Amino acid sequence: MARLVMKFGGTSVADIERIRNVARHVKREVDAGHQVAVVVSAMSGTTNQLVAWTRETAKLHDAREYDTIVATGEQVTVGLLAIALQEMGVSARSWLGWQIPILTDGAHGAARIQEIDGAGLIERLEEGQVAVIAGFQGLGPDQRITTLGRGGSDTSAVAIAAAIQADRCDIYTDVDGVYTTDPRIVAKARKLDKISYEEMLEMASQGAKVLQTRSVELAMVHRVRLQVRSSFDAPDAPHILAGEIPGTLVCDEEEIVEQQVVSGIAYSRDEAKVTLLNVADRPGIAARIFGPLANSSINVDMIIQNVSDDGKYTHMTFTVPQAELARAEDVIRKAKDEIGYEDMGTDLNVVKVSVIGIGMRSHCGVAATMFETLAEKGINIQAITTSEIKVSVLIAAEYSELAVRALHTAYGMDAE
Amino acid sequence: MARLVMKFGGTSVADIERIRNVARHVKREVDAGHQVAVVVSAMSGTTNQLVAWTRETAKLHDAREYDTIVATGEQVTVGLLAIALQEMGVSARSWLGWQIPILTDGAHGAARIQEIDGAGLIERLEEGQVAVIAGFQGLGPDQRITTLGRGGSDTSAVAIAAAIQADRCDIYTDVDGVYTTDPRIVAKARKLDKISYEEMLEMASQGAKVLQTRSVELAMVHRVRLQVRSSFDAPDAPHILAGEIPGTLVCDEEEIVEQQVVSGIAYSRDEAKVTLLNVADRPGIAARIFGPLANSSINVDMIIQNVSDDGKYTHMTFTVPQAELARAEDVIRKAKDEIGYEDMGTDLNVVKVSVIGIGMRSHCGVAATMFETLAEKGINIQAITTSEIKVSVLIAAEYSELAVRALHTAYGMDAE
Repeated sequence: MARLVMKFGGTSVADIERIRNVARHVKREVDAGHQVAVVVSAMSGTTNQLVAWTRETAKLHDAREYDTIVATGEQVTVGLLAIALQEMGVSARSWLGWQIPILTDGAHGAARIQEIDGAGLIERLEEGQVAVIAGFQGLGPDQRITTLGRGGSDTSAVAIAAAIQADRCDIYTDVDGVYTTDPRIVAKARKLDKISYEEMLEMASQGAKVLQTRSVELAMVHRVRLQVRSSFDAPDAPHILAGEIPGTLVCDEEEIVEQQVVSGIAYSRDEAKVTLLNVADRPGIAARIFGPLANSSINVDMIIQNVSDDGKYTHMTFTVPQAELARAEDVIRKAKDEIGYEDMGTDLNVVKVSVIGIGMRSHCGVAATMFETLAEKGINIQAITTSEIKVSVLIAAEYSELAVRALHTAYGMDAE
Repeated sequence: MARLVMKFGGTSVADIERIRNVARHVKREVDAGHQVAVVVSAMSGTTNQLVAWTRETAKLHDAREYDTIVATGEQVTVGLLAIALQEMGVSARSWLGWQIPILTDGAHGAARIQEIDGAGLIERLEEGQVAVIAGFQGLGPDQRITTLGRGGSDTSAVAIAAAIQADRCDIYTDVDGVYTTDPRIVAKARKLDKISYEEMLEMASQGAKVLQTRSVELAMVHRVRLQVRSSFDAPDAPHILAGEIPGTLVCDEEEIVEQQVVSGIAYSRDEAKVTLLNVADRPGIAARIFGPLANSSINVDMIIQNVSDDGKYTHMTFTVPQAELARAEDVIRKAKDEIGYEDMGTDLNVVKVSVIGIGMRSHCGVAATMFETLAEKGINIQAITTSEIKVSVLIAAEYSELAVRALHTAYGMDAE
């Protein structure tokens, strides 16, 4: 007997037939003797409709009211899934954020979970009742509904798993696991059986879309074992009924026996490059540029300062998320006198490719292999950042597939 | 300065443009210096979609989950209306049933309001903030969302008005007031400026659809002054800006100076007639028939027992709401041996016409006028019931319009 959290996204509950299919997955685990809490998103499309109504009412709208409105999406699916389970003879009850409660801070629209008291849920689970929990939502300090922002349901699932001390948190998604890289680009990409929290966190934050970064972070902190698996598997597939748990387990690195040097290659098209030309090359110039950006909560990723030709002027290049480019330009323009630059150029036509692996800690030459491989293909590197388990480069967008494929081969990751 | 409750139904908030129009009505009252609580229903159509999904999931579904699902309809409109008000510069905040809270009993799907603590609302109203309140919903004893059943938003509005000691509760609806009878049948029907609670209660329960019976009952008990008015009036109509309050006031009879003998004529097509043939005419037979019906919560309205020809057998006729006919037949059939009747006949082709007026208490001859008028038109009366302020007759459905028109003229109610 295990205690499981099962999480299903919006496409898995898009209509009543799919909700029934989710109920069958849940019933399978209940029949196997497990205690089950299910976390669901809104029916796909519903949230978009609710957001559209809100925008139609006012372009700038109160975040508290926005949260009250969009939280209804999950409220509908938990009710429907509870009914579908009951119809199959499975005892089930829905739980909204405020009913558990899932306490969050007051940052409406992007709230962070602060505390979940799992006692009420555990009591029901031990009575054999399935808890059907609305993802994406919580209760703020002012007793109002909050939402967690994009991908919030993954985060809800992990937080619930931590609160009820679940043995595993199964994230059912539209892919069947975590791959060495995007299989749409590299046909020989391999599915990983296991990946460490640290690597998954880098993969997610460097562009892999399979899990939301915050949820991986939370899983790592609370040591929640995350299983990424397909919601398209038949609920009664023989290998699953036989006890196999398909997909990829995100876990402690100690659990991974044969650790590869490089586990995956991620890429992100969400980068924008900003270049300031002829900036006066004097002490404190970086603070004058990046101070105002930080104050505006703009996330600067890569930074390159060119060597000054004459010791007087230099060029400064950095990247920001594309969604923040307009704000970044605005901030820099307003600080022009303060910074003292000649001109500003921007480039959306870039991609960031990252090589990720815990093995890098103990293996040299990973970055060198990357640079050589790209050089061989004639790909110019515009910027580089590294962390203990990651090397990222910024290149022209047109080379993205070529670069990812070449690196996948170079690190010996191609499937046979 | 007054404290007002304004209630708007589903068609008044059917899309964003109409929600904006509701906001304009609210802003007008705020600009006039009033404290305002608004109660809204779900966007029309929304509740039907939610109910359809629930039915598609399971024909017999858990009422708790049903309530969780359908309550989302009002949750969306309160958020949108609050945003629309804020956009117009009016301070506003949405309130859900559980946030106030509106405490109800645990009868999910048809809950009754037990208690509303108005203190929190009053505090905000006195700060000048409009309270936008979700109608139709409350919080049950098990901390789960309840709904009040059909027409529940009228009831919510009146209960809120009582809780915050509102000076008036304006029910905005798709008619411009309470008429002496249905203007679609009688072109010369007159709009009443005032009507007493007792009369309105009879009008509503005898078929007039303008207000929900429970809401009138509640208004009468708590002496809430109800104004029935049109949601189609322009929010900035000159006569309204000049202080006129259009529509019909439902109030204490003492407030009505010139009380008419008959105030209105109602009709209901929702009747079904059941006749039991050759029932043994012996003491206790009525209890044997109506006991089982009462035990099954079937609402029996009119009852006629024929005079027995031979002292041995009689016929027994009664009416029930059409929606309860199938259940009533079932109950009677199961009790056949106990009751001892030869055959059961049913008739859906009947209508109940009621003449209503507080003046009846002090004027004789109201019923006689009714019977004479119908006799003159050759309309056969199948059953009669009376109360202190009402006479109802059951007639063949084909005569309904003829009967209502003739009675409207006979009591001198036709407009000039």
